[in-house]
Amino acid sequence: MPACRAFLDHHPDASLVLVGSAEVLTQAQGWPRCARVTASQVVAMDDPIEAALRHKRDSSMRVAITQLKSIGGQPPVAQACVSAGNTGALMAVARYVLKTMEGIERPAIAYAMPNQADRTTTVLDLGANVDCTAEHLLQFAVMGAALAAAMQDDEAYEPTVGLLNIGEELIKGGETIRRAGELLRAAQAAGHLNFIGNVEGNDIYKGSSDVVVCDGFVGNVMLKTSEGLATMLTEFIRQEFTRGLPSRLAALVAMPVLKRFKARVDPRRYNGAALLGLRGLVFKSHGSADALAFEHALQRAYDAARHRLLERVHDRIVQTMPSIPAVAQDAAPAAPAASDDPARRVA
Amino acid sequence: MPACRAFLDHHPDASLVLVGSAEVLTQAQGWPRCARVTASQVVAMDDPIEAALRHKRDSSMRVAITQLKSIGGQPPVAQACVSAGNTGALMAVARYVLKTMEGIERPAIAYAMPNQADRTTTVLDLGANVDCTAEHLLQFAVMGAALAAAMQDDEAYEPTVGLLNIGEELIKGGETIRRAGELLRAAQAAGHLNFIGNVEGNDIYKGSSDVVVCDGFVGNVMLKTSEGLATMLTEFIRQEFTRGLPSRLAALVAMPVLKRFKARVDPRRYNGAALLGLRGLVFKSHGSADALAFEHALQRAYDAARHRLLERVHDRIVQTMPSIPAVAQDAAPAAPAASDDPARRVA
Repeated sequence: MPACRAFLDHHPDASLVLVGSAEVLTQAQGWPRCARVTASQVVAMDDPIEAALRHKRDSSMRVAITQLKSIGGQPPVAQACVSAGNTGALMAVARYVLKTMEGIERPAIAYAMPNQADRTTTVLDLGANVDCTAEHLLQFAVMGAALAAAMQDDEAYEPTVGLLNIGEELIKGGETIRRAGELLRAAQAAGHLNFIGNVEGNDIYKGSSDVVVCDGFVGNVMLKTSEGLATMLTEFIRQEFTRGLPSRLAALVAMPVLKRFKARVDPRRYNGAALLGLRGLVFKSHGSADALAFEHALQRAYDAARHRLLERVHDRIVQTMPSIPAVAQDAAPAAPAASDDPARRVA
Repeated sequence: MPACRAFLDHHPDASLVLVGSAEVLTQAQGWPRCARVTASQVVAMDDPIEAALRHKRDSSMRVAITQLKSIGGQPPVAQACVSAGNTGALMAVARYVLKTMEGIERPAIAYAMPNQADRTTTVLDLGANVDCTAEHLLQFAVMGAALAAAMQDDEAYEPTVGLLNIGEELIKGGETIRRAGELLRAAQAAGHLNFIGNVEGNDIYKGSSDVVVCDGFVGNVMLKTSEGLATMLTEFIRQEFTRGLPSRLAALVAMPVLKRFKARVDPRRYNGAALLGLRGLVFKSHGSADALAFEHALQRAYDAARHRLLERVHDRIVQTMPSIPAVAQDAAPAAPAASDDPARRVA
């Protein structure tokens, strides 16, 4: 809740729709630009996807996502939705309620990771799809490019896209990766994608391309491995700086520098993964996000809505896949509004 | 060459067979316990695997690997081979010259990574096999357990094995991973493997299991991502400690602590990946290894030979896969010797 309040204070043009239990929502009584929608159920972190879909029709998660739907010709209540809930359930409910965008077979989870060039590398998929075809990877590339472009202020900038593969000295990729490379090169030749070719794991942090495409299994392992390594290194630094009095004194002296370093790689600043390929903007916050982290996720959802991410994904898909029919009128995203209303699930 | 000299000095019970050009080998003239074998060719880092196999029959790489073969009933010249050459070529040549062990369909590359428990996590495969079946993953698990056990001084210790998978909240693994889980549980039930179940990317650095099994694509991405993240974080620390005079002074004060931290995660200390599943012990050093790093690779090869890694892999495979025929007599590894002779390729 403090994150929502801070977000409202920082964005006078935005409004929020808070979704949750009546009890939790009383905290937001009297807030400006803030609507409250009551939901009687909550999807638990360990709820099976089936349970979230079938037995919790009035969950805050589902009600929040429903705010993105245009019902009875009315424009949707909200332009984006942010949830810190169970990722698998969020994807399943969003897919069920919103449906997939025309031309997209599988929605994907995209996350902007810090890189050495002090920009971000948008990586997708991070776990929604375990077995991907070359066509899926192409769709991920198109959606990732739309996201990376939308998050830039420079309208003309065309994000570079890399295909995650393994070292040249070894047997390069499998059949799927090789075919994905062909499709991506074809899209590049047709002028629809700024594909730079294969990249390797270290390129994600080097910032060799704005977007990195991989299947959800590889992406998830990559993300979790990174979290594990960062945790280990941070813990080792802490241990070394508390080993004996001289080290503790050194820590005091070095504190401002260490704090600057910590802030620079603070994962809270990167919180908010996008669920792409749906007929609505859904963002996933880390489950253990604090107020600062959650505000960052709200900020990302706000930026995505403001920069018309939904239309951009749609337009790029239509351009890149000439065979796909145009998206039906009723499914077109609402016209961009000056104000933005990310709905929030309050667990 | 300085690494080889240091290795000989540190191990009075070991001898070396150096393989390389006559010119390079003159540096080792007069060294104790050191034989020299001349090779007229060198496999370049960018040589295609085909070229290394067919057109460079007198490469230092191939000649070094040949030292592991028992020829005409004589015991092999060396018990282990260390090379810093092209990984793909090394695997291909080793496979061609030594052949795969009975019961192993695909050799794998295993690497011991540092973890938060101040032990190591042995991960395989790291890039030799892109498309793996569940059976391959089971074989990797057995070989990895043999390696981890051999590198322990405690003979009775049975290493724990985890199967790399993705978060529970998402769609867990694909068909292959699920089947591999079943095979591993069967091996565990039969008492042949200390399988602890699925692990995730962060568990590698947490040290949740001694061995982590994955296919070569995932393993390679994981390893390279880790390298990239470590490089980025190191660079950020350097930048913050050189940003302005106060930071530079703090760096001076914190230097001993930072050095201790650096030494603790120094990748050179972990140099030396094992090529497992061959009828001979082959180790791969990082291509850009310095003397300290290369000596660590020699040390690992020495330890593997001393702890009878080849026999251990063989025994475990025979135990775990009851259907496989016993390894033919002539392919059995030479009896463990008190002295050890890792052959070295000098590029």
